[in-house]
Amino acid sequence: MKQTLISAVAVLLTGSMAAQQKPLHSGYPIDPVPFTSVKVTDGFWGQRLRASREVTIPLAFSKCESEGRYDNFVKATHPSDSNEAPGFPFDDTDVYKTIEGASYLLQTYPDKKLEQYIDSVLVLVAAAQEPDGYLYTPRTMNPRHPHDWAGKERWTKVEELSHEFYNLGHMVEGAVAHYQATGKRNFLDVAIRYADCVCKAIGDGAGQLRLVPGHQIAEMALVRLYLTTGDEKYLRQAKFFLDARGTTSRRDAYSQAHKPVVEQDEAVGHAVRATYMYAGMADVAAVTGDSTYIHAIDRIWDNIVGKKLYITGGIGARHEGESFGANYELPNLSAYCETCAAIGLVYVNYRLFLLHGEARYFDVLERTLYNGLISGVSLDGGSFFYPNPLASTGGYSRKPWFGCACCPSNISRFIPSLPGYVYAVRGDSVYVNLYLGNQAELKVGGKKLTLAQETDYPWNGSVRLTVQRGGGDFCLNLRIPGWVRNEPVPGDLYSYVDGKQPAYTVTVNGEPVQADLQKGYLPVQRKWRKGDVVEVNFAMEPRVVRANEQVEADRGRVAVERGPLVYCAEWPDNDFDIHTVLLRRSPSFEVKTEPALAVPLGEIMRLTTEAQALSYDESGRLTTRDVQLTLIPYYAWAHRGEGNMAVWLPIDLRAAQAQTIEGAKQKDNGFFR
Amino acid sequence: MKQTLISAVAVLLTGSMAAQQKPLHSGYPIDPVPFTSVKVTDGFWGQRLRASREVTIPLAFSKCESEGRYDNFVKATHPSDSNEAPGFPFDDTDVYKTIEGASYLLQTYPDKKLEQYIDSVLVLVAAAQEPDGYLYTPRTMNPRHPHDWAGKERWTKVEELSHEFYNLGHMVEGAVAHYQATGKRNFLDVAIRYADCVCKAIGDGAGQLRLVPGHQIAEMALVRLYLTTGDEKYLRQAKFFLDARGTTSRRDAYSQAHKPVVEQDEAVGHAVRATYMYAGMADVAAVTGDSTYIHAIDRIWDNIVGKKLYITGGIGARHEGESFGANYELPNLSAYCETCAAIGLVYVNYRLFLLHGEARYFDVLERTLYNGLISGVSLDGGSFFYPNPLASTGGYSRKPWFGCACCPSNISRFIPSLPGYVYAVRGDSVYVNLYLGNQAELKVGGKKLTLAQETDYPWNGSVRLTVQRGGGDFCLNLRIPGWVRNEPVPGDLYSYVDGKQPAYTVTVNGEPVQADLQKGYLPVQRKWRKGDVVEVNFAMEPRVVRANEQVEADRGRVAVERGPLVYCAEWPDNDFDIHTVLLRRSPSFEVKTEPALAVPLGEIMRLTTEAQALSYDESGRLTTRDVQLTLIPYYAWAHRGEGNMAVWLPIDLRAAQAQTIEGAKQKDNGFFR
Repeated sequence: MKQTLISAVAVLLTGSMAAQQKPLHSGYPIDPVPFTSVKVTDGFWGQRLRASREVTIPLAFSKCESEGRYDNFVKATHPSDSNEAPGFPFDDTDVYKTIEGASYLLQTYPDKKLEQYIDSVLVLVAAAQEPDGYLYTPRTMNPRHPHDWAGKERWTKVEELSHEFYNLGHMVEGAVAHYQATGKRNFLDVAIRYADCVCKAIGDGAGQLRLVPGHQIAEMALVRLYLTTGDEKYLRQAKFFLDARGTTSRRDAYSQAHKPVVEQDEAVGHAVRATYMYAGMADVAAVTGDSTYIHAIDRIWDNIVGKKLYITGGIGARHEGESFGANYELPNLSAYCETCAAIGLVYVNYRLFLLHGEARYFDVLERTLYNGLISGVSLDGGSFFYPNPLASTGGYSRKPWFGCACCPSNISRFIPSLPGYVYAVRGDSVYVNLYLGNQAELKVGGKKLTLAQETDYPWNGSVRLTVQRGGGDFCLNLRIPGWVRNEPVPGDLYSYVDGKQPAYTVTVNGEPVQADLQKGYLPVQRKWRKGDVVEVNFAMEPRVVRANEQVEADRGRVAVERGPLVYCAEWPDNDFDIHTVLLRRSPSFEVKTEPALAVPLGEIMRLTTEAQALSYDESGRLTTRDVQLTLIPYYAWAHRGEGNMAVWLPIDLRAAQAQTIEGAKQKDNGFFR
Repeated sequence: MKQTLISAVAVLLTGSMAAQQKPLHSGYPIDPVPFTSVKVTDGFWGQRLRASREVTIPLAFSKCESEGRYDNFVKATHPSDSNEAPGFPFDDTDVYKTIEGASYLLQTYPDKKLEQYIDSVLVLVAAAQEPDGYLYTPRTMNPRHPHDWAGKERWTKVEELSHEFYNLGHMVEGAVAHYQATGKRNFLDVAIRYADCVCKAIGDGAGQLRLVPGHQIAEMALVRLYLTTGDEKYLRQAKFFLDARGTTSRRDAYSQAHKPVVEQDEAVGHAVRATYMYAGMADVAAVTGDSTYIHAIDRIWDNIVGKKLYITGGIGARHEGESFGANYELPNLSAYCETCAAIGLVYVNYRLFLLHGEARYFDVLERTLYNGLISGVSLDGGSFFYPNPLASTGGYSRKPWFGCACCPSNISRFIPSLPGYVYAVRGDSVYVNLYLGNQAELKVGGKKLTLAQETDYPWNGSVRLTVQRGGGDFCLNLRIPGWVRNEPVPGDLYSYVDGKQPAYTVTVNGEPVQADLQKGYLPVQRKWRKGDVVEVNFAMEPRVVRANEQVEADRGRVAVERGPLVYCAEWPDNDFDIHTVLLRRSPSFEVKTEPALAVPLGEIMRLTTEAQALSYDESGRLTTRDVQLTLIPYYAWAHRGEGNMAVWLPIDLRAAQAQTIEGAKQKDNGFFR
């Protein structure tokens, strides 16, 4: 294998530099500011992006190599009855996803060596493509005896296990990113050929097969391909995949095919597939203006944030089927919260913001981003969680890779894309959605604008925005986060115990700004000049969150937040079993930054509070011990070995015991059976 | 009204003493020993029967008088447009049920005055009967404008609210009892006429209406009438009511009409209606030998005792619809456990014993009898519970009567019938099912046998049985209770924390008896002679019971039993809020009998144990206080005013809090929302 790769790398490649056609408008009322226009400076995200560049992406490529992902393309180039099918029908996508992530990095950090490496990989990919564009190594490598889950013939199992359309989706996503980052078509043209092959075979027309993806993603990818190429056939195909869903032989809730998509109103089934589909619905709705899609995803979003969202912004309560649970079914120890599902939920919320321009979508996005999503990757970028539970009795640690490697490769492509989520523009107004150090080149009302952001967010709430170049008469919309507006999550799934006045200040060149919030944003309308400085300050004292009483797993417990960060109790910071802790009825918290703890968690702030540890003496009497409980940000847990962890902390006796019981299945004391 | 009654009493009555026809055989493999053959001597039940005779029955009759139950018959005798319908469509049955109870008493304690009073009442009843036998005062009193729930025409609402068949059922039950006790036909003939009227109008035949009872009981009553009169038409009618169920316009689970009765396998809907129907199914099965009925009630019984039975032997988890809940849905504070349903469950278990001859049916019957049933009536016999909850935060007290008086009048007829449940006979073997002081005239293997029982049961486990007259070669089957056999209830709904060897001894004339249990009975086969003495002793130390973990309301809690009695904690015996109590992990109990407590609870034994009371100090810290917890028998609660009570006691923290939460809805402390 090594030889093949090396020889491939040897091939000198020059992607055709044919003039890029200007992308079409997405149709969203709000324009994204692409990741290519935002350079993240140092700080919280700078560290994450560096880790992604220096560790995650190289690791992912090396795993693609060592785990045989490239071999599959080589085998497909030389079909044989002796070729063995790979581990999973979607192994090819690990390659596509890593290239996508690498492409985002190339944009920000040009890297000839990396670009050449990718080109060499693309040689292998292109070589595996069949003459009519079909590109699916599990079949091509051994057409006479394809693996069982591939199906005897093309597409025969695409609604179940074969993932032929899923592979197309990630191929297109990666190819478009690579094209936008490098201007080269060597991946894009491969993707277009496979897309054409699918469009030809699948559809409502004569001689076509009416089939929909078993695992969604092609829907949003094909819209992206349409916007990139201008060829409407891809948009039609995306719409077909959505509209045919629930009308083909596949009719189950697991794959969101229990009813036509426009009639759906509850988030059900496999959480990743679901979010990818909702994102695709939003994209098609934006381009076509079809509001029935929008009504459906609005209803589904209400269901998710109102009944199925973890406080960490994670989704998917059940390991079984990697799926959403029933309303309010949000167990902590057995929470699934797949990293990929968190990424999918970011896609959905971002698109709903582009449609509706409301801050609440970014409130959910930020909650997921800072908690349930980045918990999926270690601070050094080298190991990953597949599920992200909210409690642990030990046995959980991040791994460098998985046989089913969707999460690491999804992290590879998501983290580098983060800069694209910071700003958005609508006509002559700018949305500032995320607070992190960066410099951005925007186009507002047709004029160029360079904005700089300086902040230690999420550790403190001070943000300094400077107009570095350009200016003019426009409105700067500053998102006032839900945790400042007393709304941890839209709806009544979670609420702050200590409701208080939203505490924030905004000044322009030192002058206080007074204005009413609009859709969660503070609008600052003025004639901006170079050098104008906006200073934002959000109060950041720790806050106690209570879950809706209908969430059985959280009854009698509370979670603790500071700013956008959800905190948890972990064993290394506490000299007692955290699963025996009981908070005071009205706990107060101290904020501490201690270098002692800084290693290996990086710069973090701990919280401490007076509490009690509960136990029984030999005569079976309950005893209590005063203790100081230390909390760390949830994303930072599991960096110091395996052990107990809990996000929801008992503040009354029932919860104290319930938590013990959850963990006590093995150490049954004789009364929990 | 008074006049009418007095004049009625004045009427000299001589019920026709026509030769009683010998009752047919019930068809049950085991023969009941009728209540008429067993005289309860003093002790636990002697006191209850005395209270029934001296207080309950006279009270019930006086309430029938003061609450207008008799008026309804008088109004029906003189129909008028101005006659107002009574409170409920089944008010007539309070009269029938009280007469039934009084008849049982007459048998045991002849009482000319009472007999005459009943005869005078029966004059009113007979006078209200229409020429064709129809007897339903709500319609007859005002045929042109019957009450809404009576329906414009006869039977039109019998599957919903009118209760015309329900009234027939209780009429027959009362009439047969009165006939058996007094030999008079003045009630029986009235019942026969109404039964004939119903048999004529309702059925599968030409010109008949296919209708089934909205509220069951006619099924078992008509079998009883068949056995008494020998007229098969009543048996056919009972069978029709069962077989037509679920095939008429009424098809809901509330009234057990969701599917044909022989296809049912779960106890659902209104608990009293359900048990009455199951009892009727058993009766018809016994006479006809139709095993499909038996298979159905066996399945349903398994469901009840395995998933829907309270530790007190009560059934019916929900106030809504007075109905069974879902499997394992057994809330304590909101438990319904209607007294009538407990009585109905006794009927079902007694019949299943007669069919199968297994002790486990009497284990359930005894549990219900000593706990959830007699809790329904005060020790003095003068006040009643309708629901019998297993926990209280105050507000519960027994009342002398209810607008809907089914429970008091059911107690009136059940308690006096108790002697009929003590023994049973099968060929040449005798079953001793209940342990209580009595003298019984039995017929075993054709020979007369007089047995005497002396015991302080349920306070201690020593029972002395003496053959006073007769004898011969027969088998004496002594029931070894489930609480001795380590099986509080058949199945795994409840279990003893301290599994131990069944501890009991049996001697005959001082000689120990060694024999294997058969179906839960210790068989003592020998040639019995006058003067033989059997001494039984059951160990009676307190035992701790745990519920199946699937019963959420009992998780982390335990109940305490001693002998057949379930205990509870009640406020007057404890100087702390019992809802804050936490038991030791392995609690031990002391048994105490103190005259101090004897008033007004009668002779009872208390249990005490070391425990802790939990509370919070002003800084919100949990604090514990060592306390001595005192328990009393569940049946004896609510005799000393209203206040806190609990059967299931927290032995771990979650339960401690859960219980507080259950009661805390009103006194929300800010963390339970």
